[in-house]
Amino acid sequence: MGKNRLEAFSDGVLAIIITIMVLELKVPHGSGTEALQPLLPVFLSYVLSFVYIGIYWNNHHHLLKAATRINGAIMWSNLHLLFWLSLFPFVTGWMGENHFTSLPSAVYGAVLLMAAIAYYILQSLIIAEEGRESRLAESLRRDLKGKISPVLYAFGIAISFFRPWLAGCVYVFVALMWLIPDRRIERAVSQPRGG
Amino acid sequence: MGKNRLEAFSDGVLAIIITIMVLELKVPHGSGTEALQPLLPVFLSYVLSFVYIGIYWNNHHHLLKAATRINGAIMWSNLHLLFWLSLFPFVTGWMGENHFTSLPSAVYGAVLLMAAIAYYILQSLIIAEEGRESRLAESLRRDLKGKISPVLYAFGIAISFFRPWLAGCVYVFVALMWLIPDRRIERAVSQPRGG
Amino acid sequence: MGKNRLEAFSDGVLAIIITIMVLELKVPHGSGTEALQPLLPVFLSYVLSFVYIGIYWNNHHHLLKAATRINGAIMWSNLHLLFWLSLFPFVTGWMGENHFTSLPSAVYGAVLLMAAIAYYILQSLIIAEEGRESRLAESLRRDLKGKISPVLYAFGIAISFFRPWLAGCVYVFVALMWLIPDRRIERAVSQPRGG
Amino acid sequence: MGKNRLEAFSDGVLAIIITIMVLELKVPHGSGTEALQPLLPVFLSYVLSFVYIGIYWNNHHHLLKAATRINGAIMWSNLHLLFWLSLFPFVTGWMGENHFTSLPSAVYGAVLLMAAIAYYILQSLIIAEEGRESRLAESLRRDLKGKISPVLYAFGIAISFFRPWLAGCVYVFVALMWLIPDRRIERAVSQPRGG
Repeated sequence: MGKNRLEAFSDGVLAIIITIMVLELKVPHGSGTEALQPLLPVFLSYVLSFVYIGIYWNNHHHLLKAATRINGAIMWSNLHLLFWLSLFPFVTGWMGENHFTSLPSAVYGAVLLMAAIAYYILQSLIIAEEGRESRLAESLRRDLKGKISPVLYAFGIAISFFRPWLAGCVYVFVALMWLIPDRRIERAVSQPRGG
Repeated sequence: MGKNRLEAFSDGVLAIIITIMVLELKVPHGSGTEALQPLLPVFLSYVLSFVYIGIYWNNHHHLLKAATRINGAIMWSNLHLLFWLSLFPFVTGWMGENHFTSLPSAVYGAVLLMAAIAYYILQSLIIAEEGRESRLAESLRRDLKGKISPVLYAFGIAISFFRPWLAGCVYVFVALMWLIPDRRIERAVSQPRGG
Repeated sequence: MGKNRLEAFSDGVLAIIITIMVLELKVPHGSGTEALQPLLPVFLSYVLSFVYIGIYWNNHHHLLKAATRINGAIMWSNLHLLFWLSLFPFVTGWMGENHFTSLPSAVYGAVLLMAAIAYYILQSLIIAEEGRESRLAESLRRDLKGKISPVLYAFGIAISFFRPWLAGCVYVFVALMWLIPDRRIERAVSQPRGG
Repeated sequence: MGKNRLEAFSDGVLAIIITIMVLELKVPHGSGTEALQPLLPVFLSYVLSFVYIGIYWNNHHHLLKAATRINGAIMWSNLHLLFWLSLFPFVTGWMGENHFTSLPSAVYGAVLLMAAIAYYILQSLIIAEEGRESRLAESLRRDLKGKISPVLYAFGIAISFFRPWLAGCVYVFVALMWLIPDRRIERAVSQPRGG
């Protein structure tokens, strides 16, 4: 059913995204601390985005481990998720270079929001394929973090026009919240099928 | 017989192509909407190319799933396909930066056309190896979309010198036409060999 | 337990890091030897970093071969290691372009040090998961090279503010020391489980 | 024995090399044919290098398929080969941008020569591990192409200082000579072990 190749392709894209982001850290011409200083905000936004891609890779990994069947809709919703994640290098560089000002922070939040929605669609399609009675469906019934995150991203986008630094704090907070891998799915999968 | 490594290598190349295209979206220096605006056509052409690479990945995936034997000719025709796809970042950036003007639109269409021809050659070689009586050969006997696409690309190339915006519409139309994965092959493969 | 995907993702990231480093070797405009000469220090630092990434890939490969169970902490400590390795293209280019001067050499050493610490954490978490009685734990009990390296990196960082060329020598020396793959783990793994 | 991961890592590096070479095709600012023209030599050198990386991928694939045991020396000689291949994007861009003039053509040939030597070392180490009586060793006993190529590369390097265009012809000729995958190994492997 091509699950292996879907995982391999996603791994490839995520590995490239996480790595080419560092190309936005342009090598400075000077060799003193004054040459490094302007790179600090770009570096900080790189760290944040690295963590986000890591979170997506982790959760994507757990989600697909629980999936047993892949169909065309799942394939395309997976590409849809990768599309929004592929914009990370751009929005990361833009937010970093402009020192977390309003519009770049809002656009960064918008990409986070779209990626969250894309992940939700992918998850829903996999659950639909597995059946509403499947262990995966059950383990995600509450999915508190998945429901709170988009709300927080939307709040971050709105607040970035008034207190841009607060938007950054919101994005960091959501990242910390997710740093713990989705143990619910993990537990469901590790349990024997027979329950 | 090396099918796995052929798939892995193709996945790698396609994953890189789809991801480095975003590097053409150069991070602007300003932080206002006026800094983002000139990027809009580049972004639109990026979306279009992302969908095209996604289509090729999907169809390539289905085609190779149906293949049981790989020979030297198949390997090289696969590399030939990857060559034309590798030009996507260049033509995407060029068309986007020049706001879909005549020559860039025509060159974009030419790369689409060459990739379609390369895919057709790859498909023919795999069918030849599988045998004209194979399920794959049967499922692709009509292959309407595969026959119409090159004609539409050629039309797009021609029209781009008179109505460049129409060429863009043609490319978008073909992409939408292909968004549905090739169910014929999918069906043939999922059926048990014994028929 | 997702070990395969962890390896595949790490391979992808390491393959990209090792390859995009070469992008810091900017194609010069002239075509004579005088156009190549200023690239020599960048080339040398590229060779050094290529060897380091090769060492990490080799040791990572042996370490994960010995691992039988992967948990969330191992996943994140693996990403933590990849984070520091992802800074290699930046620090390599910066050190090379500034001809191994003080601060760039110190920062290069700092990234080496952080990567070594991240590797140590990853190794410790894998050993903790495998159990203190496992063959892996036993084979790494002494781990002389793993203990000396951070000390040498720290010495390299300190010395780079007084004799930057000596820092370079230290980094080269540690690389040579590691070039030999970790035979202890290799031996432990190749021996039959029963001992 | 880690053969799978060695192949996966090599595939990753080769896929990235073959794809980032296209980044040397800088998107021009104009939109007319006069904007494309200066890119022609860069494009031609890109095609040549694409074919060379394809040849290496093909032969590497056949060689490793015949290998049954991997040791540390094979791992490092594989990285050594990847190192020289990683310089392709640089020398390709430099030769293309300088319209196949003397020094860039000679340096391109030098990288080809070093890659050929690295491949020969890798092949020799694999044969040594397999045993001089192995089918692989037997099938490579004559290895005419492998012996002629370095001589031709050396000739290309020398001639590039007098007739640079002739050096380009030599490199194209060797590429054409290799385009046919190494049928000797292919045959040896496909035959049943018992002979």
